[in-house]
Amino acid sequence: MSAPYKRVALIGLGLIASSMFWAMKRSGMDCHVTGYARSEKTRNTARKLGLCDTVFDSAEEAVKDADLIVLAVPVGAMGPVMQTIAPHIKPGATVSEVGSVKRTVIDVITPHLPEGVHFVPTHPMAGTEHSGPDSGFASLFDNRWCLIVPDDDCDEDVIVRVETYWQALGANTERMDAEHHDMVCAVVSHIPHLIAYTMVGVADDLQRVSDNEVIKFSAAGFRDFTRIAASDPVMWRDVFLTNKDATIEILGRFTEELFALQRAIRTGDGEQLHAYFTHTRAIRRGILEAGQDTDAPDFGRAKVDR
Amino acid sequence: MSAPYKRVALIGLGLIASSMFWAMKRSGMDCHVTGYARSEKTRNTARKLGLCDTVFDSAEEAVKDADLIVLAVPVGAMGPVMQTIAPHIKPGATVSEVGSVKRTVIDVITPHLPEGVHFVPTHPMAGTEHSGPDSGFASLFDNRWCLIVPDDDCDEDVIVRVETYWQALGANTERMDAEHHDMVCAVVSHIPHLIAYTMVGVADDLQRVSDNEVIKFSAAGFRDFTRIAASDPVMWRDVFLTNKDATIEILGRFTEELFALQRAIRTGDGEQLHAYFTHTRAIRRGILEAGQDTDAPDFGRAKVDR
Ligand SMILES: NC(=O)c1ccc[n+]([C@@H]2O[C@H](COP(=O)([O-])OP(=O)(O)OC[C@H]3O[C@@H](n4cnc5c(N)ncnc54)[C@H](OP(=O)(O)O)[C@@H]3O)[C@@H](O)[C@H]2O)c1
Ligand SMILES: NC(=O)c1ccc[n+]([C@@H]2O[C@H](COP(=O)([O-])OP(=O)(O)OC[C@H]3O[C@@H](n4cnc5c(N)ncnc54)[C@H](OP(=O)(O)O)[C@@H]3O)[C@@H](O)[C@H]2O)c1
Repeated sequence: MSAPYKRVALIGLGLIASSMFWAMKRSGMDCHVTGYARSEKTRNTARKLGLCDTVFDSAEEAVKDADLIVLAVPVGAMGPVMQTIAPHIKPGATVSEVGSVKRTVIDVITPHLPEGVHFVPTHPMAGTEHSGPDSGFASLFDNRWCLIVPDDDCDEDVIVRVETYWQALGANTERMDAEHHDMVCAVVSHIPHLIAYTMVGVADDLQRVSDNEVIKFSAAGFRDFTRIAASDPVMWRDVFLTNKDATIEILGRFTEELFALQRAIRTGDGEQLHAYFTHTRAIRRGILEAGQDTDAPDFGRAKVDR
Repeated sequence: MSAPYKRVALIGLGLIASSMFWAMKRSGMDCHVTGYARSEKTRNTARKLGLCDTVFDSAEEAVKDADLIVLAVPVGAMGPVMQTIAPHIKPGATVSEVGSVKRTVIDVITPHLPEGVHFVPTHPMAGTEHSGPDSGFASLFDNRWCLIVPDDDCDEDVIVRVETYWQALGANTERMDAEHHDMVCAVVSHIPHLIAYTMVGVADDLQRVSDNEVIKFSAAGFRDFTRIAASDPVMWRDVFLTNKDATIEILGRFTEELFALQRAIRTGDGEQLHAYFTHTRAIRRGILEAGQDTDAPDFGRAKVDR
């Protein structure tokens, strides 16, 4: 296909950036991809894997001449990275980023944006519990949503170009404002991760049930929590530090509901429990109908096919 | 194979009983299986599926002459069902049940046990979010644990026979006492389910994020919760009503930890969050090493192969 960008720079070479690279190659888009990661180890792994057409030893070199620059580093690193590369970005280029939080990231990147450089924040809503340069695969974004969170005064054709790019990577796109994005993600992603981390922590910490037992009998529900809670600690630390308000709000609602159910258990109110448990089934049906999961025995997990 | 029991009666024909039937057939054990379910609808579905060699219209007929009787009904129905069948059980037979809670179930069944009838409670630690006679499959128990929870004065050879039976169905067996069982299951299964139900309820209830958005963007972590929370409401109501003490204890620990993490988020304590999130990864590794999940892209979900 004709490429929306002739030269793309990926800053950070982890799960998201490496999946973007393999998806770009799969799409056949005619485009040179440069890459940079903080550590020499990651850069060498990338070179070994053939991840990026050119891997540079500095972010400044990697972004030189790029038409699209994608920051794919943890949310807390976005500001410093942007500050470093800013003087080296060519006029007319588009800066984008894939952070899991938007308001804070926009606030730390915007002050460094050079005159004449566009900025289109994005968030591909897809991931696995794995991280690093060897964890990516071309189909990660297939049929998933990539949220596009542009500023009000961003040029329409600049936004459309970013959308076209993500669609070529397999994703569906949808625009959203930053505050709403952060609230939606708190509900569908951030709080579920926090809860999973907490439950795994409790299980690990408990004197009355051994770790060995927890591991042996995990198939009974707990296993899904451990998978979510195996996600990268740096990424998730940054998410919670930067999406504080929405996180605290949803946590408040969550504990309120949990206390109500706890009370129903304590008082033996079977009707309330039954009504609550029945109600939640409708959402599952909606997810199956929307094609965001499958009911087949492999539960629709992404297949590696790079 | 030579069958540990010549005649097995399955009372209740849902996910667990139907999986037991298909696993028995797969094992090639030479044994006649009778079945009974409460509703005519389920009995007719079972007949259509070829589930059980004979489906009876009463539990009394189904248990007549059986060497092993397995109660596979919701925990809250165990007592009444046992009371109904008790006079029809032949001397020397073994009664078993597969309920997810043990102390309460043992307490409601024991008073009805006829003289000379053995009782071996079990709990196969395997399941899906589906229920009903058409949800079972032969490999459900493969490489999963079946907990055996016999009384102190139960004959050793009676227990061993039950263990042999479950091993023929694909499971590994382990003995445990009832109180410890209920605590382990609260941690690895009951509380994870309660939390998943709660989170799905919160998402559904929230005015600021639409159901449509929750469904669309569920792939970001929430989806696993909706799957767990799609489990049968009657089964789970009964679990929480009958495993009250362990549930309340673990819930207390859970909210304690959650509040500590919430505080770290509020005060911006990145070190604490990072340390917590790092710690939980070890459990995931243990589960992979124990073969209770796989890291392959289909995440080790059970395959249907009946
Ligand atoms: N994983 C998901 O599920 C998911 C989904 C959607 C969006 N996101 C977002 O995508 C971004 C990247 O996530 P990921 O999963 O791809 O992470 P990852 O696999 O952990 O990779 C992170 C990359 O960023 C680099 N990096 C880390 N800290 C840096 C710093 N201070 N300066 C420069 N480079 C740094 C790392 O380099 P080294 O390897 O050299 O340390 C690595 O190449 C994050 O903002 C995350 O919130 C993640
Ligand atoms: N699902 C799991 O993940 C799992 C795992 C391990 C253990 N268990 C335990 O296994 C048992 C069965 O669970 P399941 O998942 O197989 O349930 P299920 O698929 O919902 O089937 C339950 C069966 O019990 C019958 N039944 C319900 N109430 C009854 C009553 N009052 N009297 C007589 N029969 C009644 C139902 O008959 P109708 O269809 O006619 O209503 C149905 O055949 C439960 O005790 C559960 O705690 C479940």
